[in-house]
Amino acid sequence: MALIVQKYGGTSVGSIERIKGVAEKIAERIKNGDKIAVVVSAMGKTTDELLDMAYKLNSNPRKRELDMLLSTGEQISISLMAMALQALGYTAHAFTGAQAGIITNKIHSRARISKVEPDRVKEALEKGEIAIVAGFQGITEDEDITTLGRGGSDISAVALAASLDADLCEIYTDVEGVFTADPRIVKNAKLIKKISYEEMSEMASLGAKVMHPRSIDYAKRYNVKIKVSSSFIWNEGTIITGKEEKDLEKVEVVGVTHDKNVGKVIIKGVPDKPGVAHMLFEALAKKEIPIDMIIQSANREGINDIAFTVEEGDLKEAIKITKDVSDKIGAEGVDYELEIGKISIIGSGITKDPHIPARMFGALAKEGINIDMISTSGLRISCLIDERFIEKAVNILHEEFNLGEENGTS
Amino acid sequence: MALIVQKYGGTSVGSIERIKGVAEKIAERIKNGDKIAVVVSAMGKTTDELLDMAYKLNSNPRKRELDMLLSTGEQISISLMAMALQALGYTAHAFTGAQAGIITNKIHSRARISKVEPDRVKEALEKGEIAIVAGFQGITEDEDITTLGRGGSDISAVALAASLDADLCEIYTDVEGVFTADPRIVKNAKLIKKISYEEMSEMASLGAKVMHPRSIDYAKRYNVKIKVSSSFIWNEGTIITGKEEKDLEKVEVVGVTHDKNVGKVIIKGVPDKPGVAHMLFEALAKKEIPIDMIIQSANREGINDIAFTVEEGDLKEAIKITKDVSDKIGAEGVDYELEIGKISIIGSGITKDPHIPARMFGALAKEGINIDMISTSGLRISCLIDERFIEKAVNILHEEFNLGEENGTS
Repeated sequence: MALIVQKYGGTSVGSIERIKGVAEKIAERIKNGDKIAVVVSAMGKTTDELLDMAYKLNSNPRKRELDMLLSTGEQISISLMAMALQALGYTAHAFTGAQAGIITNKIHSRARISKVEPDRVKEALEKGEIAIVAGFQGITEDEDITTLGRGGSDISAVALAASLDADLCEIYTDVEGVFTADPRIVKNAKLIKKISYEEMSEMASLGAKVMHPRSIDYAKRYNVKIKVSSSFIWNEGTIITGKEEKDLEKVEVVGVTHDKNVGKVIIKGVPDKPGVAHMLFEALAKKEIPIDMIIQSANREGINDIAFTVEEGDLKEAIKITKDVSDKIGAEGVDYELEIGKISIIGSGITKDPHIPARMFGALAKEGINIDMISTSGLRISCLIDERFIEKAVNILHEEFNLGEENGTS
Repeated sequence: MALIVQKYGGTSVGSIERIKGVAEKIAERIKNGDKIAVVVSAMGKTTDELLDMAYKLNSNPRKRELDMLLSTGEQISISLMAMALQALGYTAHAFTGAQAGIITNKIHSRARISKVEPDRVKEALEKGEIAIVAGFQGITEDEDITTLGRGGSDISAVALAASLDADLCEIYTDVEGVFTADPRIVKNAKLIKKISYEEMSEMASLGAKVMHPRSIDYAKRYNVKIKVSSSFIWNEGTIITGKEEKDLEKVEVVGVTHDKNVGKVIIKGVPDKPGVAHMLFEALAKKEIPIDMIIQSANREGINDIAFTVEEGDLKEAIKITKDVSDKIGAEGVDYELEIGKISIIGSGITKDPHIPARMFGALAKEGINIDMISTSGLRISCLIDERFIEKAVNILHEEFNLGEENGTS
């Protein structure tokens, strides 16, 4: 008998029929004797519809009320899911974020969980009943409703699993798990059976949409074992867990990710004085714009170019800020590029093996793909390239590192 | 400067455009220097849509989850209303029932308010900000979401007005106020400018749909002055308040109401033994079926008929219960009638003046309308008649008591 936290995303509960299907799936597990807490997202397009209404009334609504509005999406889906299970003869309780004890800080629209006090969830599970918990939402100490931002329901599930000391956190989604590359782009992309938190976190940060990196980082911190699999078909899915000792020294590329949601800003002819980079990146940080890659290149004596990348949604604001800084410091000007993308290979320790980066750059060069910027960490090597070559590059690297189904490696 | 609680019903906030319109109305009042707390219902058909989803999953969902589901309707409308006011440049805070301190008992789907602790609402009003409160909902001491049942948002508004010691509780609805009779039936029906709690409570109980009798009774208990008027056009509306001393002795008919939502059950040939009526009405009470009129008639020696009326929705259940009782006590059988309706005249002390009932029965008789049952209280006289004659009867009595616009009385 295991204690399981399951999470179903918006697509999985997108219609009355799908809610019924998920309820039957949960019931099967209960029959097996497992204790089940279920975290549910808002049904399908509910969140978009609510946002649409909000923006028709106010182009810049206060986030406190936006959170209150959006949280109704999950409140609807948990109520309906509990009713579906009740119809099957089970005692199921729906719990809002507040009722499940998901306490957050006060940063509306991207709140962080400060603690989880799931007394009511525990009480239900101890009685052999089913707890249905609203994902994506929490409550502040002042009893204001908050939402957790992107990937919020995954974070809710992982946090609940951690606080319940669950045996497994099962994430049900519209894909079959984590693949060596996007299966829509790479024909023989292979389902990864097991991946470490660190690798998965990089995969997620670098464009694999399966789970949000925040939830992976949370899982790592509390050592929550995760299984990602499809809510529509039965499949083994991907297990995300700590690296076992025997694997610690193994260096291998586990996957290739890509991300077209990248914009690049270049500030040209920057006087080579101390504090210039600091001034620029502090100004960007003040506006909460996350920076991805940074390159500073000295192209002439005493004059540098600084290039950096941001998400496309932040590009306009980043350009504005950079132009202000450029004027202040007397740089030559600001350029930007939108038609670029990032391609990455991921695997523990891959930068320790000098052959791996060499093979990556070589494979791209051989096909005539120019590398604009490079960045690395212990777990990944990323290259910025022309957006038009992204699909081709994913396939080249997937092939180069023998990740595909027919090659039978990994 | 007055402290006003306003309440807008579902039709008044039925679309994005209407929410904008209401926000502008509220803003006007703020400009006049009033402090405003606003109670809002769910948008238009939201509640029906949520119920529809629920019943597709479960023909008999648990009421705890049903309340959780339905309460999202008001949570959506308060969020949007606050955003609409924010767009106009005002600081508006949306408060759920829980946040507004509407504490109820645990009877889901028809909870009673046990206390109101509107600290956050007060705080907002003291700062000159606008508080938008979810109607229809509350929270138990155990932090479960409840709903107040029919007329719930009116009750929320009145309870909030009482706890804030508001100068006036303004109920905005889709009619212009309380009329001497249904204006769709009686051409010259007149808007009643002022009516007492007692009279209004009877009007509401007897079929005037403007407000739910529960909210009127609540207003009377806490002496909350109410104004009912249209949310779509400017009009004076109807003031509902305590009767002034000078009016206490005045006997007059203030209105005629009708109600077709009536079913009648007759248990025939009941042995005239003590406790029989008790057995029947206790059985009905156990199933929470409210009884309206009751008549017991001795038609033969030692044998009685008992007839009573219920709402049409309760008729089937009432027949079943009555048949069980009939079998037990050895009565002759059970009959029922659906094609009946109730017509009532309302006014303080009208039964004290014997001419009034006489005029009522006479006017109906003159037009050949047969009276099936009669019931009275200090404030009203009701007759059960053939449903087909209801419209005619309303007009006859409206005319008989000179309630119409051209007659210039009252």
